[in-house]
This record gives sequence, C-alpha cells and structure tokens, in this order.
Amino acid sequence: MFKHVKDMEYTVHVDRPDPRFANLLLEQFGGPHGELKAAMQYMSQSLGCNDPKIRDLLQDIAAEEMSHLEMVGEAIAMLLGPTDKVAKDFPAIHMALLSGGPLLTNSMGIPWTGSYIESTGDIYADLSSDSTAELRAKLIYERLLQQTDDAGVKDMVRFLLSREESHNFSFMQAIGTLQGKGVDKDFRDSQFSKKYMNMSTGEGDFRGPWNQGNGIQYEENPNEKYGGPAKYGKDRGADASGEVAPGYTDHNRNNPQYSQPNPSQGKPQSPTTMH
Amino acid sequence: MFKHVKDMEYTVHVDRPDPRFANLLLEQFGGPHGELKAAMQYMSQSLGCNDPKIRDLLQDIAAEEMSHLEMVGEAIAMLLGPTDKVAKDFPAIHMALLSGGPLLTNSMGIPWTGSYIESTGDIYADLSSDSTAELRAKLIYERLLQQTDDAGVKDMVRFLLSREESHNFSFMQAIGTLQGKGVDKDFRDSQFSKKYMNMSTGEGDFRGPWNQGNGIQYEENPNEKYGGPAKYGKDRGADASGEVAPGYTDHNRNNPQYSQPNPSQGKPQSPTTMH
Amino acid sequence: MFKHVKDMEYTVHVDRPDPRFANLLLEQFGGPHGELKAAMQYMSQSLGCNDPKIRDLLQDIAAEEMSHLEMVGEAIAMLLGPTDKVAKDFPAIHMALLSGGPLLTNSMGIPWTGSYIESTGDIYADLSSDSTAELRAKLIYERLLQQTDDAGVKDMVRFLLSREESHNFSFMQAIGTLQGKGVDKDFRDSQFSKKYMNMSTGEGDFRGPWNQGNGIQYEENPNEKYGGPAKYGKDRGADASGEVAPGYTDHNRNNPQYSQPNPSQGKPQSPTTMH
Amino acid sequence: MFKHVKDMEYTVHVDRPDPRFANLLLEQFGGPHGELKAAMQYMSQSLGCNDPKIRDLLQDIAAEEMSHLEMVGEAIAMLLGPTDKVAKDFPAIHMALLSGGPLLTNSMGIPWTGSYIESTGDIYADLSSDSTAELRAKLIYERLLQQTDDAGVKDMVRFLLSREESHNFSFMQAIGTLQGKGVDKDFRDSQFSKKYMNMSTGEGDFRGPWNQGNGIQYEENPNEKYGGPAKYGKDRGADASGEVAPGYTDHNRNNPQYSQPNPSQGKPQSPTTMH
Amino acid sequence: MFKHVKDMEYTVHVDRPDPRFANLLLEQFGGPHGELKAAMQYMSQSLGCNDPKIRDLLQDIAAEEMSHLEMVGEAIAMLLGPTDKVAKDFPAIHMALLSGGPLLTNSMGIPWTGSYIESTGDIYADLSSDSTAELRAKLIYERLLQQTDDAGVKDMVRFLLSREESHNFSFMQAIGTLQGKGVDKDFRDSQFSKKYMNMSTGEGDFRGPWNQGNGIQYEENPNEKYGGPAKYGKDRGADASGEVAPGYTDHNRNNPQYSQPNPSQGKPQSPTTMH
Amino acid sequence: MFKHVKDMEYTVHVDRPDPRFANLLLEQFGGPHGELKAAMQYMSQSLGCNDPKIRDLLQDIAAEEMSHLEMVGEAIAMLLGPTDKVAKDFPAIHMALLSGGPLLTNSMGIPWTGSYIESTGDIYADLSSDSTAELRAKLIYERLLQQTDDAGVKDMVRFLLSREESHNFSFMQAIGTLQGKGVDKDFRDSQFSKKYMNMSTGEGDFRGPWNQGNGIQYEENPNEKYGGPAKYGKDRGADASGEVAPGYTDHNRNNPQYSQPNPSQGKPQSPTTMH
Repeated sequence: MFKHVKDMEYTVHVDRPDPRFANLLLEQFGGPHGELKAAMQYMSQSLGCNDPKIRDLLQDIAAEEMSHLEMVGEAIAMLLGPTDKVAKDFPAIHMALLSGGPLLTNSMGIPWTGSYIESTGDIYADLSSDSTAELRAKLIYERLLQQTDDAGVKDMVRFLLSREESHNFSFMQAIGTLQGKGVDKDFRDSQFSKKYMNMSTGEGDFRGPWNQGNGIQYEENPNEKYGGPAKYGKDRGADASGEVAPGYTDHNRNNPQYSQPNPSQGKPQSPTTMH
Repeated sequence: MFKHVKDMEYTVHVDRPDPRFANLLLEQFGGPHGELKAAMQYMSQSLGCNDPKIRDLLQDIAAEEMSHLEMVGEAIAMLLGPTDKVAKDFPAIHMALLSGGPLLTNSMGIPWTGSYIESTGDIYADLSSDSTAELRAKLIYERLLQQTDDAGVKDMVRFLLSREESHNFSFMQAIGTLQGKGVDKDFRDSQFSKKYMNMSTGEGDFRGPWNQGNGIQYEENPNEKYGGPAKYGKDRGADASGEVAPGYTDHNRNNPQYSQPNPSQGKPQSPTTMH
Repeated sequence: MFKHVKDMEYTVHVDRPDPRFANLLLEQFGGPHGELKAAMQYMSQSLGCNDPKIRDLLQDIAAEEMSHLEMVGEAIAMLLGPTDKVAKDFPAIHMALLSGGPLLTNSMGIPWTGSYIESTGDIYADLSSDSTAELRAKLIYERLLQQTDDAGVKDMVRFLLSREESHNFSFMQAIGTLQGKGVDKDFRDSQFSKKYMNMSTGEGDFRGPWNQGNGIQYEENPNEKYGGPAKYGKDRGADASGEVAPGYTDHNRNNPQYSQPNPSQGKPQSPTTMH
Repeated sequence: MFKHVKDMEYTVHVDRPDPRFANLLLEQFGGPHGELKAAMQYMSQSLGCNDPKIRDLLQDIAAEEMSHLEMVGEAIAMLLGPTDKVAKDFPAIHMALLSGGPLLTNSMGIPWTGSYIESTGDIYADLSSDSTAELRAKLIYERLLQQTDDAGVKDMVRFLLSREESHNFSFMQAIGTLQGKGVDKDFRDSQFSKKYMNMSTGEGDFRGPWNQGNGIQYEENPNEKYGGPAKYGKDRGADASGEVAPGYTDHNRNNPQYSQPNPSQGKPQSPTTMH
Repeated sequence: MFKHVKDMEYTVHVDRPDPRFANLLLEQFGGPHGELKAAMQYMSQSLGCNDPKIRDLLQDIAAEEMSHLEMVGEAIAMLLGPTDKVAKDFPAIHMALLSGGPLLTNSMGIPWTGSYIESTGDIYADLSSDSTAELRAKLIYERLLQQTDDAGVKDMVRFLLSREESHNFSFMQAIGTLQGKGVDKDFRDSQFSKKYMNMSTGEGDFRGPWNQGNGIQYEENPNEKYGGPAKYGKDRGADASGEVAPGYTDHNRNNPQYSQPNPSQGKPQSPTTMH
Repeated sequence: MFKHVKDMEYTVHVDRPDPRFANLLLEQFGGPHGELKAAMQYMSQSLGCNDPKIRDLLQDIAAEEMSHLEMVGEAIAMLLGPTDKVAKDFPAIHMALLSGGPLLTNSMGIPWTGSYIESTGDIYADLSSDSTAELRAKLIYERLLQQTDDAGVKDMVRFLLSREESHNFSFMQAIGTLQGKGVDKDFRDSQFSKKYMNMSTGEGDFRGPWNQGNGIQYEENPNEKYGGPAKYGKDRGADASGEVAPGYTDHNRNNPQYSQPNPSQGKPQSPTTMH
C-alpha cells in the first residue's frame, strides 16, 4: 500500500516563475526517461516477483521515484507561475491553454505511454534495463542543469541527478548477485554467438575488443556461407552449418522468468494444477 | 512523499490461476478507466492546486488508487500463474511471451497513455471529470465481476467497485461546495447558451426537458438564421444576431484556473508558507 | 444519414491572417476537448442505443458538433493565410510545411486519437461523460478567447463557448430523468462504499463534506484492518470484514448496458437466438 | 453545416447477432482504411480549398462517408447483440467489456488516429491519396465479404464496396482535369529524376518498363559516382554531377499548395498584409 | 541481406550548422512522408511477394530509401551542430536535450509509427499507395527547399526530390503492367459503383467529369430511395434495389492478395527454389 | 549507403504454414524488442557519431539487424501461408484481413513506434542501452522457441538468439573501453549519490550489497531530514544539507554528448561559428 506524506522527500525551492524551463522540465515528469517511467517500471517488475530481496529493492526505489515525480511536478507548477492572464508570447502557451500545471507529456507534448516500460519478468534482464534507465535519466538532468540559473531549481535537479546515480549503483550491485541466472544462463554457448559479422564496409572499418579476441570469429559475407533464398522444407541437409541439430530442444534452458507465487502454497485448500 | 507499506490495502486472495481473466483484468491496470489513470489524474490535478482542502482530497484518493493499482497488479500476476512452460493454447500467450506479469496496457494490449488524463487546472471541471471517471471505473468492475467465479477475486473486485462509488460520492460532495466557481461561473449568460439546435430530423425526433422548458429556444435551421459562407472581414454588420457586441471582452470572466503559489510572496527570501 | 449544407451553422468572419492563433485553435479541431472528439463521442454512443429519446438527443448534438468542426476548420484555414511563400519565422511553420490548412492534431501536433472517446454503453455513465466533456471544451474556448483580438474570431469562439454551455445543460437535464438507472443503480449499497481512507497525512489534512457526514466512515490505516500480503486461497476466514459473503453474486445488478435492438424483433423471419 | 437524417443512406439488415464478425467489421469503423478515415480526410482537404469544384466533390464524398460510418456502426451494434450477460467464450469480449457497441478502433483494438489522414494542401497530391485510399478500402470490404454469410450484411458490404469503386472513379476523373498542376508541375525535369538505382542485386534482378525505356538511366553503384562521406563545406567543386548549380533557386516552382481565401477580398475593410 | 557501405549514395555537404532547419528536416527522417516510411513500406510489401519482378522493384527502392534515410540523418546531425553547450534560445532545444542528433520523430516531435505503412498484400493497391506516397514525399521536399539557403543542403534536398519523382515514375510504369489484376479486377461492375451521391448542397454545387458522363448516375437523396432504419431481418423484399441478389457470392472475385510460396511445394523435403 | 543482396544472411526454412506462430513472431518484426527497433536504434546512434570505431560497430550491427528483419519477415510470410481463402477460425485473421504478410506491429497489433528507440548522443549511455536491448531481444526469442516445433523455424530462432548474445558481448566489450567517459564521468561524487532511501517498509525489508557497504548510507525517512513543502525563494539557508552550494555550476561536467563533426573542419571554406 502507498501512503502519502504531505512533506516532500527533498524541499523544492523555486526562485521565480520561468515558464520556458517549466516546459523543458516536463521531460522528466511525463517523458521517456522521467520519474513516472522509472516508478512504473520498477513497480511493474516488483508485482509477483518471487525473489523477496529484489522485490524489496524494486519497491524501495519505485516509491522514491513516485516521490520524485511529485517534486518535479511541484517545481513545474511553480515555474509555470500564474496563468490566469498570459501574454501572447508566453513561452509555455500550451501548458497555460491546457492545464496551468504539469501535463503527463514530454517537453514536446507527446503523451506518456506504457511503451516506455521495460518489464520482462526476467530479473537479470529487468535489472539491466533499470540500471541503464537510470543512466539516461541522469543524462537528461545533466542537460537540464545547463538550462536554468535558478539556485533552488539547480539544487533540486542536482539532487535528482545524484539519486539516479545512487539507483544505478544499487541495481548494478544487485545484478552482481545474479550472475548465471535468467537470461545470463548458458550465455554464448553456441557457434553463432561467437561470430562478428562485418556488415558495414569501406573507409572507416575498425577492429577492437568487440570484434577480435575472446574467441570471436570475424566474418565478412555471412550470406555466402550460411544464406540463400527462403524456402519451405524442414531439412538443412547434412551440413553442420546449422545452429541446431535434429531433435534439438532448448525448452529447459529458456524462458527464465521469475516464478509466480506457487498456487500450491495456497492455504488451506488443496494444491491446484495449472491448466 | 510516497511511502510504501508491504501489506496491501485490502488482502488479495486468488483461488487458482486463471490466465484468461488475468488478461481481462489488465483493463483496470493499464486501461483508460483503470487504477493508474485514476492515480495519475488526481495526482496531476493536486500539483500546485492552491485550494488546500481539495488538494488534500485529491492526494488522499490518489494514494489510494496507487494502492489499488498494486492490488490489481498482484491479482493479475497470481491469476496468470507460472509461465515457465506454457501450452500453445495458453489463453494469455501475449503476457507469457512478454512479461509473465502485468503489462501497462489495456486488455487488448494497447499501452497506457497520458491522453487518458483529464487535468485542466479548473477545480470545478477537474472534480467533474473525476466523479465521472469513477462511474466508468465502477462500470468496468461490474462487467468484470460477471467474468470470474473465483471467490477471492470477486471479493477484491467488489471491494474496488465499492471504493469507486465512495470516491464518486466524495467528489460530488466537493463539487457541491464549489457552485458558481471556475467553469461554472456566469453559466448560460448569453443567448446562444439557451438554444437547442434540432440538427437530426426524421422519425425519432423527440422533445424532453433537454430541449424544452428552462428558457430553452428550439431552433430547426440555424444556418438559415445565423450562417453563410466563411469570409474575411471583421464586421457582422448592424444586426443583433452576433454573440458578442463590438468592443466585447470576456477576459475577466474567463480562464478560471487555480492560481499558482504567488511568486511575489517568495521575496525577498523570507520563508513563505504554501497553501 | 448526414447531409452537408454549404452554408455554415454560424458565419465565420476572420479579420486577417494570424498564423499563431491558427495553431492554437487546432486544439479544438483535433485536440482532446475539441469538436471532433465531441462529435464522435456522441455519435458512437448513439449507435445501437435503444432509448429513442436519448438517441435523438445524441444525434442532434453530434450533428451540431460536426458543424462546429467545420467552422473551426474554416477559421484555421483563414487564420493561417497564404502559405505559398512563408518567411523563416512564420509562426505556424509546421502547418505550412505539412498542409497549408488544419491538421487533425492538437495545438502541439499530437494526432487525434480514438482514445479520447468515452462510450461505455451505459447511458447514465455516458451522459455524465458528455456533460463533463462540455465543461472542458468550454474552458478551452475561454482560454482561447484571451489569445485573440480579432472581432470575428472572438465572436465565433464566444458562440462555440455558449453552445458548449447549452449542451452541458441539456445533458444534465437528461441525466435528471435517469436517476437510479444503469451505473446509478444500487449506488453505495455496501460497507466499503461508505468509507473514506485518509491516505495522505501531514500538515494540510482537512475534513469536509466529502469525508464526514452522509454516513461516511473515516479510516486512517486500512491496511492494518483489511490488508496483508497477497496469497492464493479462496477463504478470507470467518471474519466479517470481506466485501462479499460466500456465494455472493452480483450478476443481476451489474452490467447495465443499454440493450441492443432485440434480434427477435427482426421481421419477417422467426426469432433467432444468440449463440 | 451537417444535418442528420434519421434514415440511413442504405438500409442495414442484419439477420442475427454474430459478435465475431462485429469485431472484424470494426476495421472499417475505426481502422486505417475505414469510413471515419475517409470522411475526415476529405473534410480536412476541403477546408479552405479554393477550387470550388474540387471543394464540392470533397464535401459530397465526405458527407457520404459519414453516412457510411453510421451504417457500419449500426451493423456492428446489431451484430454484437445483447451484452448484458455474455458467456466466457463470447467472441468479442473486449467490446462487451468496454462498450457494448462500436469502438473507434480497428479490429485489433488499436484506437483510430489522426495519423491516418493524408491532407497536404496540394490538390493533385490529395486527390491521388484519395483515389488510392478508396482502393484499399474496397480491398478490406472484399476480404470482409468472405467472412460472413449473413445476407443482409453481405448486401451492405457489397454496397459499400461498390461505393468505394465509385469514389475512386470520381477522384481519378478529377485528377485528369489537373494535369501539370501542383505537385505534377515540371515533373521529371532533372537528371536524377530519370535514373534507376539498382540497389538490390543477386538472383532475381529484373528489368521492366520501370527501369528501362522512357529515358531512364540504369545505375549500379551510385555511391561510386556521386557519393562519399558527409562533410561540412558548401562546394561540390567544378564537377557537373550535382543536382543544382550555384545560385540555384526552386522557390517559384515549389510549394504548390492551394491558395487560401484571399484576405484582401475581405470586406468592407481595407486590404491587409500578411505578417 | 543488407550490406552497408561507408560512402553515402550522394555526398552530403553542409555549409554550417542551422539547428532550426535541422529540426524541420526531421520531417523526412521520422515523419509520415519521410524516408523510413518509404523504406519500410516497400520492404514490408516485398516480403513474401511472389511476383519476382515487382519484388525486385520494391527491394531496389527500399534499399535506396534506407540510403536516403542515412543521408537525411547525417545532414540533420551536421545542421544541428555541437550541442555540448547550447544557449537558452537554441532553436532546436528539444533535440539538444534528448539526443544531440536525429530523432525518429517528425518535425513536431511525434514518434514515427508503423501506422504510416500501407502494405495490403494486393500488388495493384500497394503500388498505387507507393506512387502516391512518392508524390507526398516530393511535396515536403519542395517546401523544405524554401526554408534553407545552404547550397549543399539545397543540393541534397533537390537530389532527394528528384529521386521521389523517379520512384513515382517507376511505380506508375509498373502499375501499367498490372491492369485488371488484384483490386482492379471487375472494377465498377455493379449499379452502385456507377452512382454519384450529391450529399453536399447549396451555393457551390458543381458538375464535372467526376459526377456526369461515363455512365454515372447522379442522385440527390439516396436515403429516400434506398434507406430506412436499421433492422434485424434478412429480407430486403422483392424489390430489385439491393446490391446483391439472393445466393450472391463474391468469394471468387475477391481477396486478390499475392499468393504466398506454396507450402505443398515444400514436400517431401526435396529442395525447392523460391524466386 | 545500403545495398541489398537477394540471398538472406542465414537461410530460412519453414516446414509448413503455422499462422498462429506467424502472429507470435510479429513480436520480433514490429515489436519493442524486435529487429527494426534494434536496426533503427543503432543506426540513429551512429549518425553523426564522431568516434569512428564506435560508429563502425554500430553500423555493422545495424546492417545485420536489417538483415534479421528481412529473415523474420520472410518467415512470417511463409508461416502465414496462403490467405486467399481463409476459414473463419483462421488463427491470424487480422493478418489475413489486412495484409497477407508481416505487419509493422507487435504480436497484439500495436504499431511499431519511434518511442522504442533509445538514442541519447552519449556513447556510454547508448551502448549500455544497446547491450540491455540485446538481452531483452534474446529473451523473447527464448520464449518463442517454446512455441514452435518446426525444425527450420527453431533453427532460425536459435540463430537469431545467438546473434543477440554476440551483439550483447560486443557492446559490453566496447563499454569496457569507455570507462569514465560520458555519463560515467564523475560518477557518485556527491553525498546524495551514496544514500539508499528505505521507502518501502514492513515484513519483507531486506539488506544486500545494494543498500549496505560501498559507502552507502541507509536512510529511513528522508522527508524528515531534507523535506518540507515546496516554496518560492532561492535560499535553503545556511544549513549544509543541500546538494549544491551557492554559486554552484555543473556546466563543465555535464552534457557529455558525442561531439558532432566539427564545422570548422569543413573544407575548403573558412571556419564558421555556431550561433
């Protein structure tokens, strides 16, 4: 359950209205790297997650991001200032026209969308998505910092920027405890997972640790070796170039979702079977 | 600030997995009448709202809707059941493929969007939007109730349905305290605000209190009286049929947004109190 | 069937091009509170609606909103002015680049979406949505009125604003004839529909008619009384705190959709049964 | 102005409910090739269009498409049938849950969007878009015809299919009167407008009237002749391979939008100049 | 398979940064008439297309549009210029804030969407959509040409404009080889496909080759002849006004999709050749 | 420039049509973790990227993802099978109705959107986004592998899964060469970047390396220490709890975007200055 406390997590001080910056700050209210995105991503991931430690981590940070959403929203409302009578060159005319306060859009007016959420049910993949999301959020705050000279607003932005770093660090630490689990299981165990296809050629072709060493095979024209026209027919013939052999099954290795609460734990009734 | 408490507002009991209903229930997780919509609508409205009583009302209900979002999400995860190995006729294959848990979409897979939010900055209009949103949310729960026989799930759905009624009631009471304010000010003070245009004709034309009585004028062919081709030129001539007279200004009457915290109160840096 | 008459419902006079205002006015052409939204909402609701009086009401206003859409569109085209050669600081460069006329977007360029439509099939809920939609539409026109000094445009905007008031009034009157029907049936008949959860606390907690009186119970920590972790298992035990008792069914009370045309009324063939 | 007549353009007969087909038919109510798309496309194009003949054509067909939208919507409501109590295998459960009638979505639930509209302000381009849109609409009706055995519904679908053919024909005739105008002006007047780049090679390379004859030059590796890395610097040097010569201007040829109503025609005030 | 060559198809020269134009040029990077739309439309259509000549045509042009996407993207990045430190009046602040380079949006920030793609599986309809798409793309380039004075950029825009003309020409030639196929089969073979409904009346009613001659019947009030209220019941009675007669089937005529590779050719595992 | 080669990168063998799986496979054609997303993400990032090694890496993989898009599209077309006449229970009726081939949507019909793209202009952040995107793509392929028994399709899916692993590995290697650059610069250099806020409490609170050790401070109620109501006024007072001191500037540290091609490098003309 969520409880709301009237005081904010960190006090928001705004020197004076700055509608132009209010509009830019929408990016972190209803934008793809903003606070609602973070809150909803972690909350979605936590629902039904069976690893209680990770669940707690996700819930801690989800609740904090909700609190950041509130801070950013308050700052936007104050930066927008009174909108009862706005001049024709008011720099956030759209906000004045529609709401007089924060909109659930990015700074260009694009409505927030559930498409921003990465929640796959695989803890390893999800925490990786989360740590990366924090990097992008931090980056937007860094750029926003350049666009304001209001001391209080700078202080708030710097606070939020620091919190993203903190969250990134926590997620990275948690990933460290999950090596070899979920999507990280049996990683690079097949021939094609160790090849690098040089598909872009010409002046500017480079080699680096990403396409040499570490058992990487460098290939120039994969189509000549492995390709051809698409066709019906199950046999690739006797050649060994296919990724899987006859009778191949990867069922046990795959689909490393977190397990849901086990219905057989349900009490006091008898175990049920999934259909 | 939001704090999260591990216990839910109201315990969710699920008898056994029912992936088909899990999919339907998405409607209230990430759908247009669902819990996130409600939470975000009230939270957006509360930000910067200067009427402290309404602000408290909105924050109370926003926090509760966040708690409902959690309940619905937990129920979905449990109803979906284990998704490590799902049969080809699994009735929520999309959810198994993508997440193994709740998605921020409606029951057809449409991502939640900020377009669902009604937040105009006019308290009267906003509370009207809120009371209506609760009616629609209640309706969806009524229909969902028909689609499950799981006692625990029915109990949860009935609880949520009842809470929507409660919220609707609170919003209606609050509207009652705001008569003549905001968008309700000077209502129906002009001639065209009292006409009814009978634009659809034929068998099935009816009269009712919506187009007769109460000073309503009933008109059949407004274009013949008031219309013509669009044209450049400011004068409508000397006739009295226009809505506004020369020199008309409606500036004082309009734009009844809640006022933001007054920035001039912020100076010269002596502490100020909000609300 | 719709017929188009060349003359507009109310003549549009534009003094001279004002591309900046043309862009703002898009809000009511292709925006969420605009004329297409209204027209499509009422038209969608009217289709298959079996209450012939309400159907007529919806069709009258839908046709009028279509006529308003035309007025707004014409005004936008004239306000935009010639776009064959536009200067680099043309204030509606996007419109000049893409169409030279009205776009089905809001004033920020967001395309109109069917998500704006509220049509649930429950007449009580639908008319409530409609009356509220008119309030929001009126509000946008009030704000637009502040942004133009063109006498003809002001006259048109004031006309449209007045028509929204008129529609709101008609919808409210119609709702008055439907008390206790549809979603309003058996309203607040359960214990949880009469509670108020005080989920936001701290300085700024208020009491009002929305959380006291009228049989309202005020609760501080619902999770302590009714909550706990989610779990499988159908029984809530013998306690009386649940919303529904064993064997509860709410099937008859619910789903108060308008009935479709009765297929058995079909002539001249024999009654058919739904499969 | 639009007037609504209670009788439909063409009577809709539905034999009995068929919720599965009701769902498919949504494609033409709120889908990308459906009736609302057509109505809004032609209406958007007509607004401010200064060629009175084309304007009339667009308005005639826009009004008819609105009438088709109504027919399709009525058919959907009747095909859906009563939704007060629907079985768990009801084949249009989403529609029953959300509305009990037509939704402004395609058959998969995707909300209609203004992105479907092609309205550029160039009559030649617009009528070309319109004639093509009619072909696609016809195609969807052909496919829908295969999915129903209801005689009345088939009759309606065949009627609508025929009307699309009729509209396509009218648009093609109108295009015939506009040769050399708008976007068709000075067509293929430059060297690169007469080349064909053979960018896809291998077994399956073909020649046809689209890449030979008619003055077409066939080129294999344009990058070797005209390409290189992007760079700052205005000069392409003395070679003749560039598309434009120094001092080139294409301002007069371009931007063939229809002209807006001329503000100087505005009466009785004096001519104004565009700012 | 796609291979990337470092050199561009046609060299991009940019004189100096012009962030304002960089923003406008987004229209052709991620807008509805832009290069990605074209590339994806032709590529989607080519997949599984069984007419090897048309498939080759679509693949040639799809690969070229991908190459244009690259050119436009490079130009945008260069026109945007360094964004490490941008002034508060930077004319593409959104791009600086979010990416420092091209975004997959139109010039107003609307994300590119798969809804832009027209791919029906009917070659005749698809090539018609393609030829029209090229006209619209050309038009946008014509308008962009007016908005820049940078010689290199003008050269690039003029090159791209010319290529659109070339593609339009090729598509039109290909359509010429497909007369009477697909959606063009049995065109206008029914009575309602030869009528023109005069649905918009008043001053401004015109006649032209689109509503007279060519066997066109002109009708004023179709509802009076063919319409009435919707009803259940399969019979239209004995009148001859219906579009289809009893027992009508249009199954053979319809659904002119390209045939997929025939799966029965895939057996019994002998190699098959796809073209 | 992109060149297309008729042969695919890796031959696609499909045993026989399986429309149900064709529909699921759309997830990787037009879904958020699919091949177009990957191709467009890497291509967007590469445009204007000034680190030639990373640019090459991004272009290599972008071109390969385009080739995968083709493979997946071909497989979908073949799995869908002939759609000229489809039964009423055809398991991919939407695809048959609309295209007879792959649609640019996910498996639920949601159109692909540019919102899927993460391209920030900061190489460190971008490569992190890329490596994570590959994990999610791999995961979807693992789940798809469970849903088919077609040997050829399994082989293709396993190939694509392996390639995602390979790409993830390359991106991780490249990140290894960029430590301390871009968004990784001065990481965790402030007090609030080292705190962990315990915002979710109750049974299930855990400690782990993410909230203890590594200099992490664990805080229970940040609002009591740092919070309060939002207010106008720039001073936080003399206390040391703020994130930034008076006169703070973070301009030099921030906005670590890759630099665009330097306009002064433009030849042969003289250096230009950015405005």
